[in-house]
Amino acid sequence: MNVKKLFRDDLKTFESYNAKRIDSRIKLHANESPFSVSDELLSEIKEEIVKCSFNRYPDAMSEDLCKKFAEYAGVDYKSVIAGNGSDELIQIIVSTFLDRNDKILLLNPEFSMYENYAAISSANIVKFDTDEEFTFDPQVIIDKVNSEGIKLFFISNPNNPTGKAYDRNTILKLVKNCNSIVVVDEAYGAFYGESVIKDIDDYENLIVLKTCSKIGGASIRLGFLTAGKVILDEIKKVKPPYNVSTTTEIIGKVLLSNKSEIEEKVKYIISERERVYGEFLKIPYIEKVYKSSANFILFKTKRAHEIYEKLLEDGVLVRDFGSGVLKDCLRITIGKEEENNYMLELLKKYNG
Amino acid sequence: MNVKKLFRDDLKTFESYNAKRIDSRIKLHANESPFSVSDELLSEIKEEIVKCSFNRYPDAMSEDLCKKFAEYAGVDYKSVIAGNGSDELIQIIVSTFLDRNDKILLLNPEFSMYENYAAISSANIVKFDTDEEFTFDPQVIIDKVNSEGIKLFFISNPNNPTGKAYDRNTILKLVKNCNSIVVVDEAYGAFYGESVIKDIDDYENLIVLKTCSKIGGASIRLGFLTAGKVILDEIKKVKPPYNVSTTTEIIGKVLLSNKSEIEEKVKYIISERERVYGEFLKIPYIEKVYKSSANFILFKTKRAHEIYEKLLEDGVLVRDFGSGVLKDCLRITIGKEEENNYMLELLKKYNG
Repeated sequence: MNVKKLFRDDLKTFESYNAKRIDSRIKLHANESPFSVSDELLSEIKEEIVKCSFNRYPDAMSEDLCKKFAEYAGVDYKSVIAGNGSDELIQIIVSTFLDRNDKILLLNPEFSMYENYAAISSANIVKFDTDEEFTFDPQVIIDKVNSEGIKLFFISNPNNPTGKAYDRNTILKLVKNCNSIVVVDEAYGAFYGESVIKDIDDYENLIVLKTCSKIGGASIRLGFLTAGKVILDEIKKVKPPYNVSTTTEIIGKVLLSNKSEIEEKVKYIISERERVYGEFLKIPYIEKVYKSSANFILFKTKRAHEIYEKLLEDGVLVRDFGSGVLKDCLRITIGKEEENNYMLELLKKYNG
Repeated sequence: MNVKKLFRDDLKTFESYNAKRIDSRIKLHANESPFSVSDELLSEIKEEIVKCSFNRYPDAMSEDLCKKFAEYAGVDYKSVIAGNGSDELIQIIVSTFLDRNDKILLLNPEFSMYENYAAISSANIVKFDTDEEFTFDPQVIIDKVNSEGIKLFFISNPNNPTGKAYDRNTILKLVKNCNSIVVVDEAYGAFYGESVIKDIDDYENLIVLKTCSKIGGASIRLGFLTAGKVILDEIKKVKPPYNVSTTTEIIGKVLLSNKSEIEEKVKYIISERERVYGEFLKIPYIEKVYKSSANFILFKTKRAHEIYEKLLEDGVLVRDFGSGVLKDCLRITIGKEEENNYMLELLKKYNG
């Protein structure tokens, strides 16, 4: 028996998300926070972890955790679903709304997991290239969505990997006028400030995603989805029970209870981002630095791949895109001051 | 805009897995282990947890964890994928192999999540009713799979919710002769003994699932998939990166390092299962007790729903099936000796 005969045609040329493990001393490639939890929180986590009944299933709907997030975000907990990272929530949204060949609209460049899950679902992926500044005319998007019968439109705001943010009015114009479901992924929202999470009750077709991964909790895989009741009830059909582990629930609750600790670190990163941006501008071989509203900065240089390799050799891992519209770009996560300084020194050294 | 117009037709009548939270003092409904981790393991977990970089993503492929499981199960770690519970692995398998309308074969009765994920993928679900003893003629299954062009066949062994086990030869006969992928879910394998996990290299179409949920680790959501290289490479395309959290990885490694602790508890549960089986036989209104190779026992009584309610009132939650072929059955998880005794006393009391 040739088992390959049983494989799906649609996956024959499909390549999975590349997450090769590359070790390096300084990690500025994955848009993580450079700060783990404080000692106070660590004590709290230890205290709570020992109370865990390891043999029992978690709460199927992570209700207490959703309540904690609702408090943190200022929304009603009944509008919230927790997921095993927002990755799982993206997959759940795609499975809930896309049948084979249904159309999904994605900007280009965009976070790659939307396309990944859409391709697995055999959706029809429609791309829209943003302009040189990674922006767009919202009316053009609206016309495209409505004339082409797009069912689902994902947009990361601020955008990953560009750092570009679209203001609340632009996003709401899209939501209001697109005859599609609009998913606004605010994974990097903490570093921007504007949010449409409180607009979910006004727009039946709006879904907002949030994550703990960029604010110090990447290890625990915890994301949140918020939406109005009609859409949420449909998504709940597809959400697996027990998808968030008890340990993630415990640690997530501790993390989200300490908003001031998160906000303090976000402030630090924003301040470092602005400083690093200024320094990037001074480096001659960097042709263009993109203004960022996230915890990373994208820049353009013909020497992108060479610089990536040099940094890696010197112990700093950053994000290189290999091909496509960003092939001459590097994305560098904002780290701690000393990490940023070390990275900047290296970049300046490579000029000589 | 009416957002419901955007919903998938296939999900209109779809009902999600029911996992309502019902509180009770004694939980004999979810086939969990009655034992949490020992104090020694808890100390180890605490020690390891504090080393966690909470701000960093987990290893995308959970390599160290897969190695630990491979050691535990006696297989090559390159044959292993870890998942957020075997639930996630079931979903990944379905997404990897089933296109819309592709056929999946499921026994009836069977663990309901296979059907759940298959329905979300709009697969064509073919059911095969087992006989009164929940058994079948393997040749009839083989003929059905091959004549009907079944692509995927899931079988839990021992079966949940019946406890019925099929011996290794029967399973291998199915694997050898079915022109489909055969997924053997050994979630309850520890309580049976026979396994086909070491046969994955001999059968290209065989996938074996294991879980930590029945051996004391339900809280951490950790399952494993093992298969030969050809099939594994295809599944890896669909498996999301970072699907297992670092905390689950840490606790999973501690759990699996202590095989003797697991085996001791399994032995206890098997011994209690045999004792409880004998006691069930003595209860007049129980019409039939099914021999079990798992950590639960199914029995038949016309008074099923009434007994379920009485037990719940008295603080014991068990599994009632509501409708279908098992509507007159209850499934009771084997707990600690004192829990089982309390449950047995109640059942005897209800006779009067």
